[in-house]
Amino acid sequence: MAVYTDISEDQLAEFIRRYDVGTVLSFKGIAEGVENSNFLLVTDRRPLILTLYEKRVDPDDLPFFIGLMEHLAARGISCPTPIRDADGKALGTLAGKPAAMVTFLQGLSVKRPRREHCAGVGEALAKLHIAGEGFPLKRKNSLSVAGWRKLVEQTADRADMVAPGLRDLVIEEATTLGQAWPFGLPGGVIHADLFPDNVFFLGERLSGVIDFYFACNDMLAYDLAICLNAWCFEADFSLNVTKAKAMLDAYHRVRPLGADEIAALPLLCRGAALRFLLTRLYDWLSVPPGALVTPKNPLEYLAKLRFHRGATDASAYGFAA
Amino acid sequence: MAVYTDISEDQLAEFIRRYDVGTVLSFKGIAEGVENSNFLLVTDRRPLILTLYEKRVDPDDLPFFIGLMEHLAARGISCPTPIRDADGKALGTLAGKPAAMVTFLQGLSVKRPRREHCAGVGEALAKLHIAGEGFPLKRKNSLSVAGWRKLVEQTADRADMVAPGLRDLVIEEATTLGQAWPFGLPGGVIHADLFPDNVFFLGERLSGVIDFYFACNDMLAYDLAICLNAWCFEADFSLNVTKAKAMLDAYHRVRPLGADEIAALPLLCRGAALRFLLTRLYDWLSVPPGALVTPKNPLEYLAKLRFHRGATDASAYGFAA
Repeated sequence: MAVYTDISEDQLAEFIRRYDVGTVLSFKGIAEGVENSNFLLVTDRRPLILTLYEKRVDPDDLPFFIGLMEHLAARGISCPTPIRDADGKALGTLAGKPAAMVTFLQGLSVKRPRREHCAGVGEALAKLHIAGEGFPLKRKNSLSVAGWRKLVEQTADRADMVAPGLRDLVIEEATTLGQAWPFGLPGGVIHADLFPDNVFFLGERLSGVIDFYFACNDMLAYDLAICLNAWCFEADFSLNVTKAKAMLDAYHRVRPLGADEIAALPLLCRGAALRFLLTRLYDWLSVPPGALVTPKNPLEYLAKLRFHRGATDASAYGFAA
Repeated sequence: MAVYTDISEDQLAEFIRRYDVGTVLSFKGIAEGVENSNFLLVTDRRPLILTLYEKRVDPDDLPFFIGLMEHLAARGISCPTPIRDADGKALGTLAGKPAAMVTFLQGLSVKRPRREHCAGVGEALAKLHIAGEGFPLKRKNSLSVAGWRKLVEQTADRADMVAPGLRDLVIEEATTLGQAWPFGLPGGVIHADLFPDNVFFLGERLSGVIDFYFACNDMLAYDLAICLNAWCFEADFSLNVTKAKAMLDAYHRVRPLGADEIAALPLLCRGAALRFLLTRLYDWLSVPPGALVTPKNPLEYLAKLRFHRGATDASAYGFAA
């Protein structure tokens, strides 16, 4: 859940004045996104989302995120489209923080994805990867191999408090994956955080993709591996092969996977599981005692990591090219 | 900020099915209300607010709250109007908790009220008091004299940790006010929590009143005393007499205050200040160390209480009948 910056009516009026969006009729903080404060702003013309970028987002990255949403929206991807002010700028300042307004997307995020949702995500991800071609800005993935190593350093000595043996496991995985991590696979702009929270559906039709604040340049198939981890496991952390196959097939129909990408899939999935295991472990260990916010359980990703370690090829995910 | 209960798409669909509200297009948790979980639910017909009643609300009180909103809305008060299902029931169950949908009100709450806003609140409160006449259900004010005594018992021994001398002061105030508390003043349904968060404006026009979950039967002028405390003090906790006069005059024009109510005003204001001092003190002392949620500072109401102790009659609030 987001932490909100309080915005006064005068601050809002001053911010809005620079945009041609109509008269404000409603303004409410919404529980969307964990890194930023988000508000639903309804004007006499349309609903909008106003995002205030809190300290976890590097301001230097904002032109990449804002530019990417504009680039994707212009290429037909249903994602938030930044609103430009009278000077043509999409990024402003509100309550002393960077802020932007984007279009409101219809749809609901699903808590329990079904096969159809997984197929929809596979298709949308492939379209997103294709639409990302030609986007001129670059952003390094800070949560890849080097980032994992840093997270291991910050968490290893307390990892066994969370699960016995976890310390050795994360050290070993970061080392093994660091050495075996594929290179030379097709790269481009990836979403890097396409969890169910960040995808909207109307019934079974995917209606939008949001939250591009982890987007970066990396291997496209790694993005697919993140989605497999995020969408295709059941509540008991076992893989649902039907869902995985549906996602991979749908992706492959739009952007056919190369033989090298298919061969690398178990390793990419393992890396994706380690990435979320480590960030959740870090958050888990960083929470002050007695805090009212419970971080996500890191052990979910430990179970997923173990599954991927046992996968020998893409058939473990129901995929046959 | 509210703590949200997670609602799955299946739970929502099952709940919505019983109401004739159209097809759901969007569903987002919103940061409104502190006792309940609130969601903005947009259908192809209209936006609605869905409220899930969390454990701080007594389910036995819900018919009073829901019925009151219906009663007031039917009498022209701009407040949330409960939506009835196919069986004519406004109160349903969602995720195992009582839940209701109400109409969405336009407007923004003001963080820094001006004189015009205070006048608007005075007028709206008087109209609300008149519209409440004839509402058949009753609810005792659990946060009046007896409630204060209970809160003093729960907080006194640690009160000096918050401010030196606070222990003696709350004991003395609860005793003095318990003995001097007026009776026989005109009574009726009061909102009892009409803070700036709970009032919407479009420009300077008051567009709606929300959050009736402290409403109860009590002296009408006590409700006005709560509003004086909530709206007419500056950031340095000094009374803005211009704002107080504007509020009292606007109230008096719609529902003329009796001589007994006017005479009791300083005492009622002092009681209202003690009520919020005590609940804030209780919340302040109840927060676990390291929690991410900061409760409201109780000392704001200590300063207000001291002001009211020095007020000899209604002229201290700029009011002359």
